[in-house]
Amino acid sequence: MLRKRIREWGIHTGELSPGPLNAITDVGDVRVGHTTLISGDGELKPGLGPVRTGVTVIVPHGGSLFQDKLRAAVHTINGFGKVCGFEQVRETGRLEAPIALTNTLNVGLVLDAMVQASIRQDPEIGIRAPSVNVIVGETNDGYLNDLQGRHVHAEHVWAALENARRGPVQEGANGAGTGTCCFGWKGGIGTASRVLPLEMGGFTLGALVQTNFGGPRDLLIAGHPVGKWLTPPEGEAQGKAGQGSVMVVLATDAPLSSRQLRRLCVRAAAGLARTGGWYGHGSGDFVIGFSTAKRASEHTAHSRSNAPLQLVAQEEGLAAEGIVFNGLFRAVVESVEEAVLDSLSCAETMVGRDGHAAYALPMEQVVEKIR
Amino acid sequence: MLRKRIREWGIHTGELSPGPLNAITDVGDVRVGHTTLISGDGELKPGLGPVRTGVTVIVPHGGSLFQDKLRAAVHTINGFGKVCGFEQVRETGRLEAPIALTNTLNVGLVLDAMVQASIRQDPEIGIRAPSVNVIVGETNDGYLNDLQGRHVHAEHVWAALENARRGPVQEGANGAGTGTCCFGWKGGIGTASRVLPLEMGGFTLGALVQTNFGGPRDLLIAGHPVGKWLTPPEGEAQGKAGQGSVMVVLATDAPLSSRQLRRLCVRAAAGLARTGGWYGHGSGDFVIGFSTAKRASEHTAHSRSNAPLQLVAQEEGLAAEGIVFNGLFRAVVESVEEAVLDSLSCAETMVGRDGHAAYALPMEQVVEKIR
Amino acid sequence: MLRKRIREWGIHTGELSPGPLNAITDVGDVRVGHTTLISGDGELKPGLGPVRTGVTVIVPHGGSLFQDKLRAAVHTINGFGKVCGFEQVRETGRLEAPIALTNTLNVGLVLDAMVQASIRQDPEIGIRAPSVNVIVGETNDGYLNDLQGRHVHAEHVWAALENARRGPVQEGANGAGTGTCCFGWKGGIGTASRVLPLEMGGFTLGALVQTNFGGPRDLLIAGHPVGKWLTPPEGEAQGKAGQGSVMVVLATDAPLSSRQLRRLCVRAAAGLARTGGWYGHGSGDFVIGFSTAKRASEHTAHSRSNAPLQLVAQEEGLAAEGIVFNGLFRAVVESVEEAVLDSLSCAETMVGRDGHAAYALPMEQVVEKIR
Amino acid sequence: MLRKRIREWGIHTGELSPGPLNAITDVGDVRVGHTTLISGDGELKPGLGPVRTGVTVIVPHGGSLFQDKLRAAVHTINGFGKVCGFEQVRETGRLEAPIALTNTLNVGLVLDAMVQASIRQDPEIGIRAPSVNVIVGETNDGYLNDLQGRHVHAEHVWAALENARRGPVQEGANGAGTGTCCFGWKGGIGTASRVLPLEMGGFTLGALVQTNFGGPRDLLIAGHPVGKWLTPPEGEAQGKAGQGSVMVVLATDAPLSSRQLRRLCVRAAAGLARTGGWYGHGSGDFVIGFSTAKRASEHTAHSRSNAPLQLVAQEEGLAAEGIVFNGLFRAVVESVEEAVLDSLSCAETMVGRDGHAAYALPMEQVVEKIR
Repeated sequence: MLRKRIREWGIHTGELSPGPLNAITDVGDVRVGHTTLISGDGELKPGLGPVRTGVTVIVPHGGSLFQDKLRAAVHTINGFGKVCGFEQVRETGRLEAPIALTNTLNVGLVLDAMVQASIRQDPEIGIRAPSVNVIVGETNDGYLNDLQGRHVHAEHVWAALENARRGPVQEGANGAGTGTCCFGWKGGIGTASRVLPLEMGGFTLGALVQTNFGGPRDLLIAGHPVGKWLTPPEGEAQGKAGQGSVMVVLATDAPLSSRQLRRLCVRAAAGLARTGGWYGHGSGDFVIGFSTAKRASEHTAHSRSNAPLQLVAQEEGLAAEGIVFNGLFRAVVESVEEAVLDSLSCAETMVGRDGHAAYALPMEQVVEKIR
Repeated sequence: MLRKRIREWGIHTGELSPGPLNAITDVGDVRVGHTTLISGDGELKPGLGPVRTGVTVIVPHGGSLFQDKLRAAVHTINGFGKVCGFEQVRETGRLEAPIALTNTLNVGLVLDAMVQASIRQDPEIGIRAPSVNVIVGETNDGYLNDLQGRHVHAEHVWAALENARRGPVQEGANGAGTGTCCFGWKGGIGTASRVLPLEMGGFTLGALVQTNFGGPRDLLIAGHPVGKWLTPPEGEAQGKAGQGSVMVVLATDAPLSSRQLRRLCVRAAAGLARTGGWYGHGSGDFVIGFSTAKRASEHTAHSRSNAPLQLVAQEEGLAAEGIVFNGLFRAVVESVEEAVLDSLSCAETMVGRDGHAAYALPMEQVVEKIR
Repeated sequence: MLRKRIREWGIHTGELSPGPLNAITDVGDVRVGHTTLISGDGELKPGLGPVRTGVTVIVPHGGSLFQDKLRAAVHTINGFGKVCGFEQVRETGRLEAPIALTNTLNVGLVLDAMVQASIRQDPEIGIRAPSVNVIVGETNDGYLNDLQGRHVHAEHVWAALENARRGPVQEGANGAGTGTCCFGWKGGIGTASRVLPLEMGGFTLGALVQTNFGGPRDLLIAGHPVGKWLTPPEGEAQGKAGQGSVMVVLATDAPLSSRQLRRLCVRAAAGLARTGGWYGHGSGDFVIGFSTAKRASEHTAHSRSNAPLQLVAQEEGLAAEGIVFNGLFRAVVESVEEAVLDSLSCAETMVGRDGHAAYALPMEQVVEKIR
Repeated sequence: MLRKRIREWGIHTGELSPGPLNAITDVGDVRVGHTTLISGDGELKPGLGPVRTGVTVIVPHGGSLFQDKLRAAVHTINGFGKVCGFEQVRETGRLEAPIALTNTLNVGLVLDAMVQASIRQDPEIGIRAPSVNVIVGETNDGYLNDLQGRHVHAEHVWAALENARRGPVQEGANGAGTGTCCFGWKGGIGTASRVLPLEMGGFTLGALVQTNFGGPRDLLIAGHPVGKWLTPPEGEAQGKAGQGSVMVVLATDAPLSSRQLRRLCVRAAAGLARTGGWYGHGSGDFVIGFSTAKRASEHTAHSRSNAPLQLVAQEEGLAAEGIVFNGLFRAVVESVEEAVLDSLSCAETMVGRDGHAAYALPMEQVVEKIR
């Protein structure tokens, strides 16, 4: 079954225009890399397999983040998760390493590998320079994957960093999305972007999500109660309402302060809600936002504007400010909504541990029902 | 034009059953009172009129809140508002006075009147007893109302407290909702409730909202993009995307701690998003939640259960806990969504300051379009 | 008994140099105004008197705050208090009205008067401009004062705004400090400032406190356990460990973002602790910080520097940043500590409600004991 | 040089009585374990040595924390640190694994080892049970230690867990305190406890700190400006004002909710301030608090009371509540202050990387000067 992006199915959500790639990589110099780990089949042998997991890295620019930090913010919608690195971002408002996403029991090893990668790039870390703060997010892919094995090793993390690039992002069952489920179907990685019209500042905003949340009956697509129309084939994945988690990464070239970026992160909750999410009890729903615009010159070319940079940065011009922020907020909502839908529409069926299957959302049926 | 509740139009949102009244007054001993102030017409004479405003009080029980405090929590979605009383609830986890809602410049006078009412009921406040903490919330009804006049006086607040009662709640353009706009149409007060099935604990949860938010094109009703189908007649109210505000009050008879109540408050954001809201830049979007269940004996009769009270209170029984909380979260989302829709479907057209009009949402058209 | 500032007694705390006035009015264009209300004697007649209260306003500059907002932050150490206006500062990072301090039951009336004052200055508030956010803080002066009377009326607030001026600040039992107690003695208003050396940026930071906290045995002066050496004459004020409250206002000409200002506010807790405070159960301990430096040109003359303004604002230059922030943090700690001590050393004995007396800290004895 | 606890030098801080051990292990069934790693000398060879680091684990009870979770809270004073596990505690209010402290670049490996240890104890984690949340805290021991080597491996973590026991705690340069500096001198691990008098509930509270903060001139001992009297021998450690970090762990047998525990954590800031700390710019100052009292029967024997358990748990009885909380707050302040001082008075001189030396605080001189 050929998997396509939601927009290729003729399903458009929102009003704003996407960027050229409709991906987080539309923003500044943002890069994304995956390592996907699939091996073994059949019965779960704890610590051994089967393996259905991976790591995804979001690399905000091609230089040293530690040397050239970016303004950033974090926001917790529901904190039932193991993300690390949040405290320092709250205090300093800065991102100083790429962001890594993986499975829930693998956070320690991935964190250690990311620290090593930072040291390799900046050998003074821990010697003359202070320590390095890394954000590692996670969701629980244990329905398909041997979690206890913590199969994402340092070399997998480094490979993801090395293959991180601009351009189109592989969505669906890739990287940290290899083993995740969403609304009872196969979820994974999704991404989308929006470009604001010039009168709203012309900024670009992109989202990338790792989706592992939602109960089958709750799925909404462009307002349509698809979750009530379609029942996923039997399996534990169906029962996941209120379990699971979602990681959301937002990037923008708008020159925002960390306080302002946090305001953007808050709006991710509306994007998730538009797909039927409501941040279940056992869900770790975390949002990370960063601005690539340290200097006006870094403003993305296709953002079609370089005008109101100072305006937003300086928190001046209140009427204009409202217009810009409402534009950015809408861009967050639309990007997150579409990124979640893409994670579904792009993911292939995956069979893993104990023969558990997470099925690809049957897009032909979805489209037909919607019509 | 006869105004009806959204459900009377055959529009059902959500899966859970409402309580007998489908109102916040389904919960425990909760009472609601309004004072509605409508006078004058024509040109705005700042400080004089026209007056299109009021006050709404939510009285959690019929006794002395100061003597018999309830567990409570607060949550700020977007903090561009003037609500008061939040800090102490965050610290103590308790509500010790009824909640009042009014217009944005009237918070001081309403707060003072509420303090006086508390003193009247508990004459030792400020003498042998400490001070009293009151939550006063607000939205900006200045499109229709002479804000500078601060027309809600002490006697209006006291009248609302005196007429507060159990039973059906007047929705639409009443009390604090007299002059508010929502999605470009006339908004106001809305309420709804849900009763959890026995296996989720059988608890009742109710919401009351004061709606003054949303741009016309954003309105969603049961997933349908009604805002794109219907254009409100001309007027400044149409341009309100990202302005305005919403106050949400949640009540439940589930015996929750303040931490747990705050988790419920967070889910109000999903309810608002399902109506098209995304918490605009200039919006004061605040949520207050309280539990009426101090003692098992206070458990609401029609909640059809008295079983898992201890369970939730003691934070024990993790699997059961997830089921109960996911039930409560869903109840919050559904109640808030329906309460917002009710605030629209129940509100009559209101003409105020400078001839500004906020039009009643044309429900016949809405229903027809949805079909 | 002549009351003097703590420094005039030869008691120096900290290492940094104070500004010319050793007061919050050393910063930029900051002004302070008081209205002090003292009337009646003897038995408490609730609602009538005796009156021992007042209002203190901190006016950050001589223009319209609403038009020319300043960056600001708030921080709650212990939230058992009724301060209002915090939510919007958290969201917007801005101060748009002077700050008022008063007694705990008077917040509503003072808020209303402050709103009126803002409207008078900016008549478009609530008409074409949005609403105005005002911070009103409070402590509980009910040991000396008839709280229920809410004796601070609009004209008293407006008088304080009108008499607000640069120059020396009246400390001790003035304005909002008229009826407050601190460590069992008479407290009140205190202020202090510090000027950073040039290599730390040369910025000025000032603090103003309204002290109403602390138990008698806890008082520390420059590390000396004065509270264990001196016993206040009998009275209920002695028993106040863990009750009472303190409001702290910080001003600086360092060009800080709201996130950075919040970091300064957090350090007020250390200043309070150095006087023996530990933020008691029933204490409302709130901190408000603002920066007067919107433009480099507004940098205070006697700050002896205009160099690293851009540096701090841009969050660049990490090593330099640490030096500047540690300087600012130390300035906060020292200013708050000295301001609390000043509130004690400057306050005269006050007899109020029911003959309750709060005695002036006997500074001669203190100095003798310390020697 | 024989190192002794601060109290053995006749220096008493605070008013409350310590528990039998004057240690966190006075509380319930709390256990502490260290692994201390010291090897190599001379020049830093990044990744190889010298090694001056370790790991300290706080094990709240002898059973499975994952099965028998405890109420807990976290609090960030200054967030410039890499602690992990905080988000889930904020959401759930529960601790489900022992707490580990280590060096800043070692958090990933220690986290992974702790996860493995949890899995070993509860083999259903990640299979039928969800994931496990572990708190790992850190400070930067890079002045003495080869940070890049991340020398704390899984076996060291497991050894610390295995040797964790009740009884006296090794303080000073042990475990996670092996390589840390405090106020320019050798810091490390410190601990202390307080038992409340019966009328305050009779509860026990203990603190354990990992100290790596403070500039030499700032040190206060029982109010005496020891830092101004004594200059540490030359070395970079002297310049550390505003750098460094401190981890604080609080345990109590009072049956508190997570909200109430967070209130205790906030008071750690006052304890640190009483030693001269003010939470420097680059400091990661984190507090973790937990209650061992799930059931009344678990109340510690030597707490000399079992009376007001229900009272506090139920948040009832307001006057009594104030007395109990003020007692607990005072116990936090005193325990943290004394634990910091113990970390200094117990630590031996340590020479590490590049011949850097952190000298033992010369207690004879301190005592002499204080006299």
